[in-house]
Order: sequence, then C-alpha cells, then structure tokens
Amino acid sequence: MSKLTCQISVSLDGYVAGPSQGPDDPLGEGGMRLHEWLFAGEGPELQVGIKSCGAFIMGRNMFGPGRGAWDQSWHGWWGGNPYHQPVFVLTHHERETLPVDGDAPFHFVTTGIESALEQARAVAGDRDVMVAGGAETVRQYLAAGLLDELLLTVTPVLLGKGEQLLVDVGDPTFEQVETIVSPSVTHLRYRVTY
Amino acid sequence: MSKLTCQISVSLDGYVAGPSQGPDDPLGEGGMRLHEWLFAGEGPELQVGIKSCGAFIMGRNMFGPGRGAWDQSWHGWWGGNPYHQPVFVLTHHERETLPVDGDAPFHFVTTGIESALEQARAVAGDRDVMVAGGAETVRQYLAAGLLDELLLTVTPVLLGKGEQLLVDVGDPTFEQVETIVSPSVTHLRYRVTY
Repeated sequence: MSKLTCQISVSLDGYVAGPSQGPDDPLGEGGMRLHEWLFAGEGPELQVGIKSCGAFIMGRNMFGPGRGAWDQSWHGWWGGNPYHQPVFVLTHHERETLPVDGDAPFHFVTTGIESALEQARAVAGDRDVMVAGGAETVRQYLAAGLLDELLLTVTPVLLGKGEQLLVDVGDPTFEQVETIVSPSVTHLRYRVTY
Repeated sequence: MSKLTCQISVSLDGYVAGPSQGPDDPLGEGGMRLHEWLFAGEGPELQVGIKSCGAFIMGRNMFGPGRGAWDQSWHGWWGGNPYHQPVFVLTHHERETLPVDGDAPFHFVTTGIESALEQARAVAGDRDVMVAGGAETVRQYLAAGLLDELLLTVTPVLLGKGEQLLVDVGDPTFEQVETIVSPSVTHLRYRVTY
C-alpha cells in the first residue's frame, strides 16, 4: 500500500502557523515567514516528491476561513488547485465536488479522516497520499496512527504563539530516514510507527 | 572576539529535558532519550567542536539538584569535569572554586550572566565559550542578546512536557549556517543576531 505522508514547515519553536489567522492573514501573524524558502525556490527535490503524490487531504481551515454552512462562492485561497491532483477537504458540512478548470477537483468529505484517506487512496492508486495540513488535520492523522511519514521543514524563525504541530498526538515513534539541506532551512524526513 | 556558542539536544516538540527532574532523574522523564545519539557515538565532528571550546558556562540546576545554600559534598553529577575546561556555574549562593583532580575546576559565579561570560572569555582566550545548559541558562543568554551561535540537535522523540528551550527569549534572528547529519539525529547550526 502507498504511504500517507505529510510535508509541513515548522518554526524553531514548533509552530506551523502564527496567531490570529483570518481571511486577511491565512497563515497568522508571521506565518508567511515559514514559507519563504519555498518562494525562494529552495528544496526542488522536495517539490518533486510532493508532485509525485496522487491525492491530497486538507482540513477545512486550510481550504478557507469560513465556518459553518458553506459559502458556495469560496473556491479556496489559490484561484485553482495548487496540488494539481484531487484534494479531499475534511468538513462537517456537506458540499458538492468543486471542479477546477483544467485541473483536478476539490472533494468534500464529511465522514471522517479514515474515510477521506480511503477515498484519497482510491484515486491515488500506487502513488502516495499527502496530508497538506493544517496542524489540526496532521495531529488527527498522527493521533489515529495513520500517518506513515512526516517531513518537517525546520525554518529558523520564532513565532512565539500560534498553531503548534506536535501536541496531543499520542506517542508515535519517529525514525529519521533522510535529511535534505536547503540554503536557509533543513528538511527532516521521519518514518512514523505506532 | 571568540564566539559564545551553545549545543543542546531538543525533542521534536521543543523540550530539552523531561518533566519531574530530580536527584534520581536529572534529565526528567524521558529526557535521557535526547542524548542516546551521544552515547551511540554519533556526531564525532560535533564532539571535536565542543572539545575545542576554552570554557563552559552552566546553570546551577544543571550542576546539581540542590537549591539554596550549597551542600559542599556535591561535586556535580559526573564524578569529575566532563568538559575538561574551566566551568563557570551560575548561582545565587557563593561557593569557593571546586578543584577537580587532574582536570579543570568548577567556578561559581554569583554576579550574573555577563560577569560569568567575561570570566569565561578571560580563561578561554581565543577559543569559543560554550553555554552547556540547561534551558533557563540558554534562554537568559539569548534574551540578553549574548549568544552568537546555537547548535540544535533535533532528536526524533516527543516528550510532551518538561523544559522548553525557545520560549521568552525575545526576538533574535536565526540564520542557518551548517547542517550536520548523524544516523539518528540532525544538528542545525544557527548564527544568532539581535
């Protein structure tokens, strides 16, 4: 079976987003600093790995700032599908599949994380499935013993507060399997077992 | 002027020691797991760097479990001086310099972190000075803008609670300058500016 993997940028003090996330500041105060390495074009081999995944899973809070019943006019932050593969959005509110012009669609899953994983694996085939984020979704997959690999991009910033990644995730075992060095950050790949 | 540096092992969730530190468990519950890489002989180039330092600074809580007036019979956890260079122990309680048979002594400094650094630099000469730990001492040197370099050994364990390293340290800027990969851990060297 293919792997369930996750790549996420984390601050030196363990945050994956800053405080006060909202429509005008989706990554929270200072959170964009976690992703500067990406916009600088660092870690191309990492991009290849991400692009090789066959489906993605994300939490609703990563897909958009709305809560409760869907605003049908919201099509995500990106003006398209940045992953170019089917994305499964975890939500408590039903919504029809959202097609994307010339690209893979967003599906909305109200039946839980295991069901989302099953659907994602069905479309990914032999390819890996990636949890795109955010923190709460990664935590849920870790706590449920479902994540096979975690690729942490350690970013040399301190955020001081915000969304912490590795809290309340049970007691998984991490084994370092690869380290990828970029100019400004380091990517640490861990095999996760339970 | 030589650098003030610090090498410290940190868990994936940001702790440098586990909870409930005490005489029988100096690193706290699970804290020994942060140092298994060292006992496994990993990171020999790191050991060379540590051995090249000319003096070390540590907090009293790293030197021993006692608080208040000194128990003169306490000579440290190690049965000697593990750093083989003069060690300056920060304390609020005066104590005479403690000689170590055939090795460098422990000095006790009651006049604060800047004074300890000055004394350490005086004996280190051209060589770097290292903050040996623990967390509170590292935090104080960071918050005071005195630490020039931080070498974090990212260790794939979760501790869940204990002593966090990078909280309440102000807003220093970290720049990744070197990554050293060991079999089970990765060492991230950052230049710190303020």
